[in-house]
Amino acid sequence: MEIKVVQKVMAENDKIAGEVRALLAARGIYAFNLIGSPGAGKTALLERTLAAAADLHPAVIEGDIATTADAERLARLGVPVVQINTGPFGGECHLGANFIRAALDELPLGGVRTLLIENVGNLVCPAEFDVGENEKVAVLSVTEGEDKPLKYPLLFREARAVVITKTDLLAALAFDLAKLRQNLAAVNAGLAVFEVSARTGAGMDDWVAYVRRNAGCA
Amino acid sequence: MEIKVVQKVMAENDKIAGEVRALLAARGIYAFNLIGSPGAGKTALLERTLAAAADLHPAVIEGDIATTADAERLARLGVPVVQINTGPFGGECHLGANFIRAALDELPLGGVRTLLIENVGNLVCPAEFDVGENEKVAVLSVTEGEDKPLKYPLLFREARAVVITKTDLLAALAFDLAKLRQNLAAVNAGLAVFEVSARTGAGMDDWVAYVRRNAGCA
Repeated sequence: MEIKVVQKVMAENDKIAGEVRALLAARGIYAFNLIGSPGAGKTALLERTLAAAADLHPAVIEGDIATTADAERLARLGVPVVQINTGPFGGECHLGANFIRAALDELPLGGVRTLLIENVGNLVCPAEFDVGENEKVAVLSVTEGEDKPLKYPLLFREARAVVITKTDLLAALAFDLAKLRQNLAAVNAGLAVFEVSARTGAGMDDWVAYVRRNAGCA
Repeated sequence: MEIKVVQKVMAENDKIAGEVRALLAARGIYAFNLIGSPGAGKTALLERTLAAAADLHPAVIEGDIATTADAERLARLGVPVVQINTGPFGGECHLGANFIRAALDELPLGGVRTLLIENVGNLVCPAEFDVGENEKVAVLSVTEGEDKPLKYPLLFREARAVVITKTDLLAALAFDLAKLRQNLAAVNAGLAVFEVSARTGAGMDDWVAYVRRNAGCA
């Protein structure tokens, strides 16, 4: 019984994700679904990305269980942003496609080329859900340890790119970047890998160029 | 239909959690359920705790989606440890009471006074599940940001204590400990709060004394 209901929920999600994908394609909008642990630096990455590239013609959907703090941070950059709070819906640990469909109704989509979705901070559940994005991007900070791709493999299998954040902290850590890259390659050899520091801006150019290229804004 | 099945799953979990709690009480074992994001430093905290306090007469249950890396780290300390991998069970994002009941069958419980459970790295889902523990402990690293109690309130409401980890990195961060303490108090004024560095050992004495006291090993 439980399995049947889960299958039904997933089938319903996939149906809505297909509708979201068709809606975005019809408007020429490319969507990134950013997924990472709480505190991995997803919002800081978005802030830097948006500040660096007005030519992305971006819009943002922020997912959190509670608070509108992240949406407020990004709205300061003059970008259209909608905050989803899953708290009233049982504190859901991920964004489902239904949330994205609802959020798109609230966004002024005219002229938008790039949709940046920041999922709920969670390395597990969001990886299981198609929300109609064109690609999932894993966000992993160097403070989380080299072993995370092996311990949470689904996200790194599902993602097309991974952004390694907080590289400015490497000097203060016993962290082996080569080992992390080896673990990433073991899980998904096709991953595009970026190393960035939102604090110093290091590595942001390569990442932003990737976003621009995939979104067709190059 | 979905809600009914979820209720049934939770009711079944709570029933098993009650059995686990009774089994532990009958043996005089006190159980901590450690919950935090991937990379929050839960395993390093356990390593330091176990090394500092043989008089806890500890046993450990390690939860991960994949790999036995954490159990291997702890087994080196000569402590009875069982690794649960949720990967074969749909990659579950949390430990349910059924996993704990099964793990207890594999542990030599004679003489054990303290059970330390390290949950799957996730700030969301594990907070929803009673696994038969005596108390939940939130583990939050300073690299994750001051806002986490507000954005992921359930865990901090359910926990009796929070261990703030990686304080050795404070010098490299723009992190406001007073602000974090304020946010913790806003969510749960009754939390016992500890600040530790597993790297330097700072603050470990207070935390270990708390574990000892609650486990009745003082």
